[in-house]
Amino acid sequence: MDYHELLKSLAEPGEGKIVLLVSDGIGGLPLQPGGLTELETAKTPNLDALAKIGVQGLSTPILPGITPGSGPGHLGLFGYDPLKFIIGRGALEAAGIGFAMSDKDVAIRCNFCTTDAAGNITDRRAGRIPSDESAAVVQKLKAIKIPGVEIFVEPVKEHRFVVVFRGEGLGDAVADTDPQRTGVPVLKPVPHEGCAASKKTADIAGEFHAQAVKILANEPKANNHTMRGFAKKPHMPSYEDLYGLKAACIAVYPMYKGLASFAGMTLAGEPKTLTEEIDVLEKEWKNYDFFFVHWKYTDSRGEDGDFDAKVKMIEELDAVIPRIAKLNPACLIVTGDHSTPAKMASHSFHPVPTLFVSDLARTDEQEHYGEKYAVYGGLGQFQAQYIMSLALAHAGRLGKFGA
Amino acid sequence: MDYHELLKSLAEPGEGKIVLLVSDGIGGLPLQPGGLTELETAKTPNLDALAKIGVQGLSTPILPGITPGSGPGHLGLFGYDPLKFIIGRGALEAAGIGFAMSDKDVAIRCNFCTTDAAGNITDRRAGRIPSDESAAVVQKLKAIKIPGVEIFVEPVKEHRFVVVFRGEGLGDAVADTDPQRTGVPVLKPVPHEGCAASKKTADIAGEFHAQAVKILANEPKANNHTMRGFAKKPHMPSYEDLYGLKAACIAVYPMYKGLASFAGMTLAGEPKTLTEEIDVLEKEWKNYDFFFVHWKYTDSRGEDGDFDAKVKMIEELDAVIPRIAKLNPACLIVTGDHSTPAKMASHSFHPVPTLFVSDLARTDEQEHYGEKYAVYGGLGQFQAQYIMSLALAHAGRLGKFGA
Repeated sequence: MDYHELLKSLAEPGEGKIVLLVSDGIGGLPLQPGGLTELETAKTPNLDALAKIGVQGLSTPILPGITPGSGPGHLGLFGYDPLKFIIGRGALEAAGIGFAMSDKDVAIRCNFCTTDAAGNITDRRAGRIPSDESAAVVQKLKAIKIPGVEIFVEPVKEHRFVVVFRGEGLGDAVADTDPQRTGVPVLKPVPHEGCAASKKTADIAGEFHAQAVKILANEPKANNHTMRGFAKKPHMPSYEDLYGLKAACIAVYPMYKGLASFAGMTLAGEPKTLTEEIDVLEKEWKNYDFFFVHWKYTDSRGEDGDFDAKVKMIEELDAVIPRIAKLNPACLIVTGDHSTPAKMASHSFHPVPTLFVSDLARTDEQEHYGEKYAVYGGLGQFQAQYIMSLALAHAGRLGKFGA
Repeated sequence: MDYHELLKSLAEPGEGKIVLLVSDGIGGLPLQPGGLTELETAKTPNLDALAKIGVQGLSTPILPGITPGSGPGHLGLFGYDPLKFIIGRGALEAAGIGFAMSDKDVAIRCNFCTTDAAGNITDRRAGRIPSDESAAVVQKLKAIKIPGVEIFVEPVKEHRFVVVFRGEGLGDAVADTDPQRTGVPVLKPVPHEGCAASKKTADIAGEFHAQAVKILANEPKANNHTMRGFAKKPHMPSYEDLYGLKAACIAVYPMYKGLASFAGMTLAGEPKTLTEEIDVLEKEWKNYDFFFVHWKYTDSRGEDGDFDAKVKMIEELDAVIPRIAKLNPACLIVTGDHSTPAKMASHSFHPVPTLFVSDLARTDEQEHYGEKYAVYGGLGQFQAQYIMSLALAHAGRLGKFGA
């Protein structure tokens, strides 16, 4: 019996609500050995108050030493084994712009590129043309029609856009058409040998590219494009199916909304700020069992390498904690999908301080929320995937295993 | 190579004796955040003395957040993966009344129920008839004879009883006959499609039920019965086979004796109290390598929701510790099969404080035995299944893996 089968067999209906508050990339590093991390530096009286009545530990997103992207990082938090449930890059890119994929879709990450008169690539990113210019060119590609398939073309950022083919029997085992170097032509889309469904997709992709180069012929920079990461919608059991939870996602950024929608969460509201996210949480409180609330900027400022700015973003999060606590969730979890130390200006492999607050928590002796406190926390060190079983248990939503 | 293959290949004969002292449901919760658990509240000078010379940690019975029943809880302690070795409900019920199953047996949990003149169930539990009345009715069912199969019918408690069919080639893939509601008849026993062995069992069960309803026709309440949890004896490698240990079970309650017998332990003595259990331990000390000693009442008082009474039961356990220590086992383990916090009045998912005392223990800095000390203990947090490999190692009974 695996983890999901186990949880599915034990999940019980209940009244207890769960809030999974994800401060993206909240874990960090001290700038100097022995110093304080961003979280330890931040003044967080409200999170510390929760630490006193809760229990904390360190969650490992994937495996020790492994740095997760946003996709696997969130899948782990949502209780999916991130090494088993892989979201293809095309599907992740579609999720990232909030495109709602269906089971008939194959999504592809495309890059505009520049080719010379001989058809050889001179710039793999079409000079990173500005997003507004790029979006105007994408608009022209919407004219492409191929019989038997519905086509969506959506801008992303700069030279990047997404193409989705929607049709019957489309496979996604198609190789990238980006040769990864200049001086050579864009590759033909080649299906994985012996896969008829992917041959169909490759044929459609070839036809799409043929029509696109005609439309793009007079563009100064974006006169060609490559295709990468052909991917169908991931097959993931839903929160409702696995845990019996009616789940809502409260997030600002499309990527996280997309990831949550793969898990079957409903996208609640259209918040633009953290304050608006908490507004949505309060407004929707009665309508869901589970709330995934996503705070982006701890990651963003970590990625910027700006220690002080990340500290401020943690303090902004702390300021809204009383509003969440006032709703009195049966289980509130404060965590991150990974660490993003300003010192590294990137995601990192370091485990994530994770705090549980619940009437059923076996409280520990920690009086602050932070990496060095979590080391001595009652939850010890554990895989992020188990946050979901712990959440269900702390909310009184899991029955006993065996007699 | 899996865990069992590994241990089997490394197990070495030795003189060192192992005592696995299981205080059922010993782990607990503070009544208020930051307060003391039952174990932390109890005065345990003898256990604390062992903590000073031992090493402790927190064991997770199944997986984080999962609350185990007694069956999976003990299987984990005995070194079996509780998600792989599943004991069917019928076999567990048979174990619970101390019935010694053979490999030819299929055990079934039965409930007396009441049906009306049309044969429809009016009470699924026959008014929960008292145990003595029920036992008398069970006695009548012993008259049932079916050619080619030996039949055992044994009372359990109130409306519950156990039926065991013993014969050649009996399968256990037979669906429950309890329709789980009133106003409809008892279902026929239906075998899993295409399973001849289970068809044989289902036919016998059908004949048993037919004879039973004739015998029960004039009973005021218990005039019919349902059958659930058809189960053969679980196939588990024995302690002797896996670990090379001659193992004894010293327990008062039949359920734990049954579980131990599935692992091939010998049931030693017939103790009725904790003192008598230790008498048996002393008496049998020379005859076995491994002793599973079970103390029931920490769980019972936890289930009652009686914090103070559970504290007392822990103190009763503490009082016998010197007698065990005096035997000088090579490895003494003090643990529980799960937590049973009085605050929850039920089994819970919280990890269990687990103490190892051995001349080979790498001692930690803890001076008391308890949940909050175990958080800082030298063993960290680990799955209960590994208690057995740690026990063998601390008793000097495991060879080196690889050259």
